[in-house]
Amino acid sequence: MELKAKAYSSSANLGPGYDVLAMAVNLFYDEVFVKIEKSDRISVETVNVSGPFSSYVPIHENTATVAAKEFLKRYGLRAKIKLEIVKNVPVGRGLGSSGATAAATVAALAKAFNISDANGLVEIAAEGERVAAGSPHPDNVAASLLGGVVLIYSRKPLKVVKIPLKVKPKILIISPEPIVIKDKTKYARSLVPKTVPLENVVFNTGRIAALITGLITGDLSLAGEGMEDSIVEPARKPILPLYFEIKEKLKDMGALGVCVSGAGPSILAMFDPNTPKSVIEKIRKYVIKEYRKKGMETHVYNARISDGAKVEVIKG
Amino acid sequence: MELKAKAYSSSANLGPGYDVLAMAVNLFYDEVFVKIEKSDRISVETVNVSGPFSSYVPIHENTATVAAKEFLKRYGLRAKIKLEIVKNVPVGRGLGSSGATAAATVAALAKAFNISDANGLVEIAAEGERVAAGSPHPDNVAASLLGGVVLIYSRKPLKVVKIPLKVKPKILIISPEPIVIKDKTKYARSLVPKTVPLENVVFNTGRIAALITGLITGDLSLAGEGMEDSIVEPARKPILPLYFEIKEKLKDMGALGVCVSGAGPSILAMFDPNTPKSVIEKIRKYVIKEYRKKGMETHVYNARISDGAKVEVIKG
Repeated sequence: MELKAKAYSSSANLGPGYDVLAMAVNLFYDEVFVKIEKSDRISVETVNVSGPFSSYVPIHENTATVAAKEFLKRYGLRAKIKLEIVKNVPVGRGLGSSGATAAATVAALAKAFNISDANGLVEIAAEGERVAAGSPHPDNVAASLLGGVVLIYSRKPLKVVKIPLKVKPKILIISPEPIVIKDKTKYARSLVPKTVPLENVVFNTGRIAALITGLITGDLSLAGEGMEDSIVEPARKPILPLYFEIKEKLKDMGALGVCVSGAGPSILAMFDPNTPKSVIEKIRKYVIKEYRKKGMETHVYNARISDGAKVEVIKG
Repeated sequence: MELKAKAYSSSANLGPGYDVLAMAVNLFYDEVFVKIEKSDRISVETVNVSGPFSSYVPIHENTATVAAKEFLKRYGLRAKIKLEIVKNVPVGRGLGSSGATAAATVAALAKAFNISDANGLVEIAAEGERVAAGSPHPDNVAASLLGGVVLIYSRKPLKVVKIPLKVKPKILIISPEPIVIKDKTKYARSLVPKTVPLENVVFNTGRIAALITGLITGDLSLAGEGMEDSIVEPARKPILPLYFEIKEKLKDMGALGVCVSGAGPSILAMFDPNTPKSVIEKIRKYVIKEYRKKGMETHVYNARISDGAKVEVIKG
């Protein structure tokens, strides 16, 4: 059997939702071609990696192979699997690149073996993430796999729920060319404090509750206020060039909420769906100018919340 | 002008929502009679306190007088105000007793002076709480004033939002006769850790998001899972007799979620609205038996989420 799966980039945290919230974003997608043959052993191999970010994907032990092995192991299956990865999601920007590859792989296998266990599939794809980030973190993969905005509200056992959205906001992703940091996600996680003052806990629990309320009821102003984080973003200031400098200005110019995308350096800004193009264009120009002043190039992308991974059977 | 206001008891925290979430509960209500006369000075006086818990309310500087003075100050008003308090909400049980008195007072004054600024009114009533608890905490007063389930997602400035509920659950309040602790709320707050391990922050932010999602979408099972708290309840174990011993059993017997009501010792259990009476009755008997084994008497009340404060003009 041959299948082709695509899974979108994603933005984790959304402010106060460190390790629990993520949003699928229709900016970039990875494709994974999966060929499955009968076998009485487990064999998983990546036979090709192409696409603009292919140089970042090791041919052995990448997120796709690890996730595929985990999939077979978990469901007690044996097969010979060959993978071809098309790596389009930029690496190191905080857009869930490794998660997209793992999610596409798992989505294809779920289709092939007719498995519809969302919590289990997210857990498997998160294992794939382990090779990219040092530990399995399920937020990005959950978003890329299921689409929309996802909440992981329990880790052991893993439990995921999709947040129903009344209104789909406009999203702007501001993505500076990253400074190359080895093991970026690991380093970014090491900056997060191990203990947190109670007042920040109160702040963040209040904010995530506002974010969820706003998203479900369609009150995007409230959701935007709910994107404030007092714990993780301040701690990561050293790896977030210009974020704190431009954030309030973006809100003054029309953004309802502004947060760091995953471990950064990308920034996610949320807007009312009816925001005029002229407002977005003005912000785009402002942002590019501000980064240029500091000698940095940045991309500014219009985006939307995307669907989950899509799978096509190429050969039954 | 003469007015009569009533405001219900409330349950703060709901598990992970320490200082940010509370629910109005139709178990008990305080009444406050407010007589307003023209004056060019500010004068606020409690002329009578009656009701079963009147002995706990000082005639000077109670939550009602403090809230009334704060009300006049904040809105630049002058008047002579006389208050009569009927104190029905039990004191020291974690049912927002002092908050109910303050909320009723503020609701009456808001009606009299035609003020509809929810955030401001909650802030004023919370000032009333200061005399009862040592610091203004707005969660109980917000619930008693506005009704339903309220979220305080910002402290400075204070911002309150009512969570829209798709389904109104059945509530059971288990309320052991409290051990008398001087300045209970203050003491209970002192038990809460000043810093929190990051993993507990992740746990609680995930859970409060699940709670809110479940309440708004009507998925009460999810909401119940969202009532788990890894920070405040464990820290308060010394003042929560039997809570941890009976919690899992209550869930096995049919409760969707179980949490401490405010600073305790009362316990709130949430049920599907269609839960048969026989299930509730079985739980009631079990609970009373368990407390009796430990030599404690307990009350078990059927309740519902209540409306906010109600005001009647007695004499225009």
